[in-house]
Amino acid sequence: MIRIAVDAMGSDHAPLPEVEGAVQAAAQYGVAIVLVGLEERIREALQKHDAAGLPIEVVHASEVITMEDSAATAARRKKDSSIRVAARLMRDGDVSGVVSAGNTGAVMATVKMVLGTLPVVDRPALSTVLPTQKGKPAILLDVGANVDCKPHHLEQFAIMGDIYSRTVFGIRRPRVGLLSIGEEASKGNELTKEAFKSLKLAPINFLGNVEGRDIFKGDVDVIVCDGFTGNVALKLSEGLIETFTAMLGEELQKTLAAKVGYIFAQKAFRQFKQRLDYSEYGGAPLLGMNGITIVCHGRSKANAIKNAVRVANEFCKHNVNQVIETEFHKLGLSKNATVT
Amino acid sequence: MIRIAVDAMGSDHAPLPEVEGAVQAAAQYGVAIVLVGLEERIREALQKHDAAGLPIEVVHASEVITMEDSAATAARRKKDSSIRVAARLMRDGDVSGVVSAGNTGAVMATVKMVLGTLPVVDRPALSTVLPTQKGKPAILLDVGANVDCKPHHLEQFAIMGDIYSRTVFGIRRPRVGLLSIGEEASKGNELTKEAFKSLKLAPINFLGNVEGRDIFKGDVDVIVCDGFTGNVALKLSEGLIETFTAMLGEELQKTLAAKVGYIFAQKAFRQFKQRLDYSEYGGAPLLGMNGITIVCHGRSKANAIKNAVRVANEFCKHNVNQVIETEFHKLGLSKNATVT
Repeated sequence: MIRIAVDAMGSDHAPLPEVEGAVQAAAQYGVAIVLVGLEERIREALQKHDAAGLPIEVVHASEVITMEDSAATAARRKKDSSIRVAARLMRDGDVSGVVSAGNTGAVMATVKMVLGTLPVVDRPALSTVLPTQKGKPAILLDVGANVDCKPHHLEQFAIMGDIYSRTVFGIRRPRVGLLSIGEEASKGNELTKEAFKSLKLAPINFLGNVEGRDIFKGDVDVIVCDGFTGNVALKLSEGLIETFTAMLGEELQKTLAAKVGYIFAQKAFRQFKQRLDYSEYGGAPLLGMNGITIVCHGRSKANAIKNAVRVANEFCKHNVNQVIETEFHKLGLSKNATVT
Repeated sequence: MIRIAVDAMGSDHAPLPEVEGAVQAAAQYGVAIVLVGLEERIREALQKHDAAGLPIEVVHASEVITMEDSAATAARRKKDSSIRVAARLMRDGDVSGVVSAGNTGAVMATVKMVLGTLPVVDRPALSTVLPTQKGKPAILLDVGANVDCKPHHLEQFAIMGDIYSRTVFGIRRPRVGLLSIGEEASKGNELTKEAFKSLKLAPINFLGNVEGRDIFKGDVDVIVCDGFTGNVALKLSEGLIETFTAMLGEELQKTLAAKVGYIFAQKAFRQFKQRLDYSEYGGAPLLGMNGITIVCHGRSKANAIKNAVRVANEFCKHNVNQVIETEFHKLGLSKNATVT
């Protein structure tokens, strides 16, 4: 049975959503969970659920990373933080993956410090899954692990995204696009114009440049960009979805007719919201690290944690990291490539 | 009376929306219009409207820029295109501003070639106005005039955006934000971290970094970024608004109850859509050029053209370009600054 560590102290309402999500995941997916954090608070939260007989353990970690800690300081100085302890469990082979809803920067820095990147990968990439009009999710990466990128980083991101899409989503030949500002190869900034050339030669189904409006249409499976652009795009999407929902809610409360309409269409609205709900998609896998890490939003509820455990479990089952190593070696992409 | 040239051959359904929008603008805003393009087709379209007595002229331009033309080629080779003739009218002082729904790249290249940038400005910036939750629109720039930017370009964009917000929207002390990936000054890419330092010293109400999710909240009046990031952000927003509307429409047709609800709440949906409708906001002013140019979406309808003429008119009335020149000189920002 695959074991996943859940950082129980990361989210805004920790450890409640983590514990509840872990219980749900253990029950639904047959995966063993190690909850890491302040033991007393975790056990207290566990009391509220029927966890009897479920493969759930608790490992104590005495320190908690707070909003006030900078990512780098938290990673370096808090040697007994919940994410640090979880990362050590992964390094030592006690667990196969880690889920955390803590400060993304601190999680990435800690995992990088404890486990490092895969030997073949230059830079890890944070990936996220976005809802699309056609129902199939689209993978966007990098959304914040590497702010300033070189063209060959984007090439590596594309190949890791392709592997993620194939192994975890089962898409046979993922359509990969480069996020830019026009479809023609000549459109883009210095970075994307260079990256375009390498991506054209890469052994992937490269569609060429795609634009912001294509992300949600559902005609691209993997969208590649630098971590600055991706982070702006991700947060903009989250913000716009919130604004939409708020504006729609306001309009639907303005008149009696609208209120009546809302009552009739309530189920439709719920379903609509669910289609846009990020938490259904299972967090943001950090690709290229020497271990499986799924980062969740700080505002995650139990459902988001549960889904992140599901994704971590799938990454482990499909040996995603081993596939990355093998394919990078084959392509001669690795830093110290010895083509086999 | 201010005279505005409307490129009648730019939009997807040219010249119909241009002509209709021009007639509406002439009637509503007391502005004189010069419709530029294939004279026969414009006059034919004019027949459909009651334009008698309105200050509308037609100036013939024999060439039309098509989808197949690259921006640079169109600007250089089509010497009698509608946008080229319109730009010449502006250069010669026959009109004070130009509105075009043509290929954005071709419009920018043509205006730059015919009129050049303001002597004080290094790079022009394409700005756009986005709807926000609080009702007040937010200005985002650059959304595509300059793909690779230097920090001092972002500083100039910020000051031009500040002037736009003050003069045209009447906001006394616009809140200016730098689009980045975290609020702290230390967050961002190489470009934004450098730009942050200059913006802190600039004579504007600089809030610091803002994130993608802040754009639509309504707490920032001017959001500054490089043209690559801005273009991705703009197209992503447009795409997400389309996807959102389509998904909601789908859900509202799925069950009878939802359909009934939709009928009751129809007015609310219409109002909701209107709040998100870009065409209400009047196109994208190209700031820093030696003339007033408002770029509209290729899919613009008459209403969008009408609103763009309104914005061009306001830019002229408020002497925006003169304000830019004066303030840049005062700040010693201009390329050949002679501080007065």
